[in-house]
Amino acid sequence: MPPLTDLLQDRVIRELVLTLDLAGTFVFAISGAMLGVRRGLDVFGVLVLSVAAAVSGGILRDLVIGATPPAAIDDWRYFAVAMAAGFLIFFWYSPISRLRTGILVFDAAGLALFAVSGATKAIAFGLNPMMAAFLGMLTGIGGGIVRDLLVVRTPVVLQRDLYAVAALAGSTLVVIGEQLDWPAIPTAIGAAAVCFVFRVIAIRLRWGLPQARPTPSDDELHIG
Amino acid sequence: MPPLTDLLQDRVIRELVLTLDLAGTFVFAISGAMLGVRRGLDVFGVLVLSVAAAVSGGILRDLVIGATPPAAIDDWRYFAVAMAAGFLIFFWYSPISRLRTGILVFDAAGLALFAVSGATKAIAFGLNPMMAAFLGMLTGIGGGIVRDLLVVRTPVVLQRDLYAVAALAGSTLVVIGEQLDWPAIPTAIGAAAVCFVFRVIAIRLRWGLPQARPTPSDDELHIG
Amino acid sequence: MPPLTDLLQDRVIRELVLTLDLAGTFVFAISGAMLGVRRGLDVFGVLVLSVAAAVSGGILRDLVIGATPPAAIDDWRYFAVAMAAGFLIFFWYSPISRLRTGILVFDAAGLALFAVSGATKAIAFGLNPMMAAFLGMLTGIGGGIVRDLLVVRTPVVLQRDLYAVAALAGSTLVVIGEQLDWPAIPTAIGAAAVCFVFRVIAIRLRWGLPQARPTPSDDELHIG
Repeated sequence: MPPLTDLLQDRVIRELVLTLDLAGTFVFAISGAMLGVRRGLDVFGVLVLSVAAAVSGGILRDLVIGATPPAAIDDWRYFAVAMAAGFLIFFWYSPISRLRTGILVFDAAGLALFAVSGATKAIAFGLNPMMAAFLGMLTGIGGGIVRDLLVVRTPVVLQRDLYAVAALAGSTLVVIGEQLDWPAIPTAIGAAAVCFVFRVIAIRLRWGLPQARPTPSDDELHIG
Repeated sequence: MPPLTDLLQDRVIRELVLTLDLAGTFVFAISGAMLGVRRGLDVFGVLVLSVAAAVSGGILRDLVIGATPPAAIDDWRYFAVAMAAGFLIFFWYSPISRLRTGILVFDAAGLALFAVSGATKAIAFGLNPMMAAFLGMLTGIGGGIVRDLLVVRTPVVLQRDLYAVAALAGSTLVVIGEQLDWPAIPTAIGAAAVCFVFRVIAIRLRWGLPQARPTPSDDELHIG
Repeated sequence: MPPLTDLLQDRVIRELVLTLDLAGTFVFAISGAMLGVRRGLDVFGVLVLSVAAAVSGGILRDLVIGATPPAAIDDWRYFAVAMAAGFLIFFWYSPISRLRTGILVFDAAGLALFAVSGATKAIAFGLNPMMAAFLGMLTGIGGGIVRDLLVVRTPVVLQRDLYAVAALAGSTLVVIGEQLDWPAIPTAIGAAAVCFVFRVIAIRLRWGLPQARPTPSDDELHIG
């Protein structure tokens, strides 16, 4: 392959990952801020939740693929975007931000964006296809896990709405597209859309997978 | 030392770590899946817990010693083994998997295998003996901690049954063996056996260490 | 700049970070041990909490800046200091260690020391100023988060006492000092003092930031 194409391709991938990352940072930060407002946290607690939800998945991804310092630490825009989203929700949108659905929709968008950015960056760092899909899933679910653990509630990923399946669907599509040489940007948009729509429909229709026993008695399985 | 011996030694150590890791992945995944079934999670929640319990300790170990990407991300067999264990428990063993003892026995086996693999790999990466023992302990306890936090319960390591002590005993034996030039494979098997037996006897006999006050009122100190 | 000055500067910074780290390790370990005693854990549970509180922030910092193996794994003194603090609290200070205030004061000291060590080390590893301040905050809050999650309670950082703000104030002062070429050691001491005093006064006067709604109904927002 000629070097020029390589360089262009590299730059496209880098900008694609950055764009997905910043968009994911924004929407995950909103989900974190909304959860903080619902729990009655003060403005700084809300900002901590925003940042934690926004950067955890990407930091985990970058640590695992050896891209240190992680993008979210190296580039101030991640932090700034997360803080801006946190302030926005705290000061302007508190009536809306108390709705459970709002958190879930923004969370679904973050899941989709990070699943795709995670798989894309993992491929660029030379991981094999199966593991790139797995790492994409991990990147997507990481932010929500840390956010939920910080307020001591069962992470949304363990609940009955195909959360990790949706992330895996998105990251797998990216990997398939890369194997079949599809153009990177439309593939990324399509994969994120599939993950997001899949997840939102699952919430709407209360889709779920078979359980091992009819009803759990552990009440922490549901969002309060 | 002649290069050939070095190479052979390296290969033995690499295969030993891989074998211990995959065996530990399998049994920790079973403990995670059983906990998921007991909590009434759906099949994907069960698989998430399986994978989280199975790979967290090893990923933590590899991040800390700088072996990126971690084995569990780089090598698809870890993920495949963890998924297989999760499906196995979900579809075939649900009556057995609801027993508390089952979780604890598989957890003890995972603890033993990862404590030994952690200490062995840490030595191979040049950590000093005391820290290799400590890292072995950390590798062993990591999986159970992440698994328990995901279902919002106090990690088993903080409970009254010599959990971390058992892991430290196993990893310390590996380090002593390495210092005294014992052969690697029998040492690893012996160290894992000591850790496992120690832990199971501690559970059976309800061994414990002195507490600072008679009875805790915090009910979360016990497995529900 | 002449090489000799560079070398001296490097050595000063290295020793400064080590000193701050070991002092922070000691006081965070005490906060962890006290929490363990209050929760009625056995001696090993108390030691696990001590070590977890003491080393988590620094390990996170070192992973993120790519300093592997992390200082707390590479250097046995971290582990030894944390264990010593844990034993001390378990055997000698149990009456004192049951006071909530004690935990908070030692926690504030750890927060201050690690916020400063985190920012200092981040600058030495070439992070840009804004991110160095952010990483200092992260280093400071990391230990308390892991400690609190292990006993399944809401991390102190989400509570209403300017916790992360205090850490950010300390780490920002370090960054400002570095930009204005203040001498490293007095700056570090001053920044740690500002963070500590700020935090203690905030606890004393029950300072807080505005909340999004008057009273939270979620009881887990308060330390039990």
